[in-house]
Amino acid sequence: MSAASQPVEFGFQLLGTDGAARRGRVTTAHGTIETPAFMPVGTAATVKAMRPESVAETGAEILLGNTYHLMLRPGAERVAALGGLHKFMNWPKPILTDSGGFQVMSLAGLRKIEEKGVTFRSHIDGSVHFLSPERSVEIQHLLDSNITMVLDECTPHPATHEQALSSMELSMRWAQRSKDGFKKRPGYGLFGIVQGSVYPDLRKRSAEALASIGFDGYAVGGLAVGEGQEIMFRVLEETVPHLPADRPHYLMGVGKPADIVGAVQRGIDMFDCVLPTRSGRTAQAFTARGTVNLRNARHQDDPRPLEEGCPCPACTSCSRAYLHHLVRSEEILGLMLLTWHNLAYYQRLMAGLRAAIEAGSLEDFVAGFHETQAGGDIPALG
Amino acid sequence: MSAASQPVEFGFQLLGTDGAARRGRVTTAHGTIETPAFMPVGTAATVKAMRPESVAETGAEILLGNTYHLMLRPGAERVAALGGLHKFMNWPKPILTDSGGFQVMSLAGLRKIEEKGVTFRSHIDGSVHFLSPERSVEIQHLLDSNITMVLDECTPHPATHEQALSSMELSMRWAQRSKDGFKKRPGYGLFGIVQGSVYPDLRKRSAEALASIGFDGYAVGGLAVGEGQEIMFRVLEETVPHLPADRPHYLMGVGKPADIVGAVQRGIDMFDCVLPTRSGRTAQAFTARGTVNLRNARHQDDPRPLEEGCPCPACTSCSRAYLHHLVRSEEILGLMLLTWHNLAYYQRLMAGLRAAIEAGSLEDFVAGFHETQAGGDIPALG
Repeated sequence: MSAASQPVEFGFQLLGTDGAARRGRVTTAHGTIETPAFMPVGTAATVKAMRPESVAETGAEILLGNTYHLMLRPGAERVAALGGLHKFMNWPKPILTDSGGFQVMSLAGLRKIEEKGVTFRSHIDGSVHFLSPERSVEIQHLLDSNITMVLDECTPHPATHEQALSSMELSMRWAQRSKDGFKKRPGYGLFGIVQGSVYPDLRKRSAEALASIGFDGYAVGGLAVGEGQEIMFRVLEETVPHLPADRPHYLMGVGKPADIVGAVQRGIDMFDCVLPTRSGRTAQAFTARGTVNLRNARHQDDPRPLEEGCPCPACTSCSRAYLHHLVRSEEILGLMLLTWHNLAYYQRLMAGLRAAIEAGSLEDFVAGFHETQAGGDIPALG
Repeated sequence: MSAASQPVEFGFQLLGTDGAARRGRVTTAHGTIETPAFMPVGTAATVKAMRPESVAETGAEILLGNTYHLMLRPGAERVAALGGLHKFMNWPKPILTDSGGFQVMSLAGLRKIEEKGVTFRSHIDGSVHFLSPERSVEIQHLLDSNITMVLDECTPHPATHEQALSSMELSMRWAQRSKDGFKKRPGYGLFGIVQGSVYPDLRKRSAEALASIGFDGYAVGGLAVGEGQEIMFRVLEETVPHLPADRPHYLMGVGKPADIVGAVQRGIDMFDCVLPTRSGRTAQAFTARGTVNLRNARHQDDPRPLEEGCPCPACTSCSRAYLHHLVRSEEILGLMLLTWHNLAYYQRLMAGLRAAIEAGSLEDFVAGFHETQAGGDIPALG
């Protein structure tokens, strides 16, 4: 399982299917990932408010790191000199890094996109930086990322067909340059990213272009940018069939529990999103019965756990009244516990999806999921 | 060890001495406390940025809770209805609560002190509250505190002899009323607080007044308020000999490691202070070799642990470079890890003091402590 022993090839095993949904296993130099999998986001070499041991306890088998943040601080060469990102942040399991493109493109007024790459100003100190497909891949190599993402242009939504075509074609040229710059090592992989906005013809062309370059996995990019769940699901239905079936499929930046469930039904294997961690810092908890706002005064005298049966410390050792108190008092422990709970909920959801696909009962699982979500939180006391 | 089984009497065993220093054991309904002991501060029903399990892992056997904060939010009656503070905050071990007096007296312009008690405005919502010796003891009873502190007036520094006398006499009248109002239960105790500013005659009179009322323990109050270590040590030398030797001696709100070491040498058994937790949130780490500021750029490439041999997760799983990165990035994990380290350092210091007293080698221990502190942090790399 480790790079020190027998070299492990990066790979994907398809263990079973249920409709379009897939049960699989990704193998990397730092361990395996059972799919469908959710990757907590560790932006700046930490999953916010969580010790890495706690993240692992929730069941997470892979984290996402952000190239943009890490290249600026502490710097990719520094992380490399310190032994790589796994060692730096004390996370011995697999790591996927984004390309930095999404964050850089989001720096309104602070970046310039050209054929060669993107010039941008740091949000930290205003210093000027340059990111090309080659440099992005190099940074991710320095970080020792198990899964490197190609630099792409995340096409804004909405975009005309012409804009989406031009943007997608740039991303495809950058994908080829990323592939050319990627240093292949056993147990490390490079993923391409399909673009094409909401246009089926462009998504198909993009998927085919990437497949002909050849990647270790295929991501669907440019979604969860405001288009809504219905369009997102439609784009997945029009895109995933064109992705090589023998490689993992990764939907970037998604999402809410219902988004993930629907995307798994449409053949997606991997997800990442800041939602569980960010929501944990704003008193929003995800549960099987929908979201619960712990700031609400209805919880202030409630001795019951946030979610019965959840093994996380917020649920096993605290009352709703206590969590409410921590939130109202702006105590750090409140963020810590709710982040933990949300990550535990997401991992529990993924485990449920995996078990349902294995059992061939995904349809029932999804029906049950929607039913309990719609039922809402347990009634307030009194 | 628990209130549910055979009732346990609150008590203090003096296990040994080394000069004026004492090795003891406090027994409560929720467990025993080996002394000299340091009590982490859990102001609002949480030790900031720490799970209670982690606090216990550092070796802490008792926490301090703040009556002022808890009476305002979530409210003493609410905590009682939820099963008491131990259950509320998931800390099954002993708890000591302050009387609320110190915080209330610190509300400049927002409080009025009279014979009957103190009227004050909440810092949270401006609402008006009244705290008397009887109400303070009642609140601490509602919280289910193992060690209740009498309401006193913390005499400001500097104070004239006349001011200090008048303030001390008020505190002694309040001490009697606190005793009268205290509901004695097995395994629960009430501590008196010696006042008298820097005046030996007043400290002696205060100690004798409290002894004649009769308490389960005796605190030295009104120190660590700007008088400096030299005066603090002198006051302890003039005060502790007048405290009943068969009861625990508690120095309130102290302090830096060197303050604690000197106070143990002068017969103090219990301490509390926000310093390790507050410093942990401002990048200051306590180590055997003095304080280390993790914000300093000298750490940015340093792969070494903060403190070699420390079993806390900041030291066993992180480099100084990583801690520096977390601090610079204002990541919550940085506060969490440095708070943990500081509490672990304080508990290690107390364990060392206890072992040295047992071995009759306190003088050598203290000499070694000062020598390594004076030696300063390990040299920077390169």
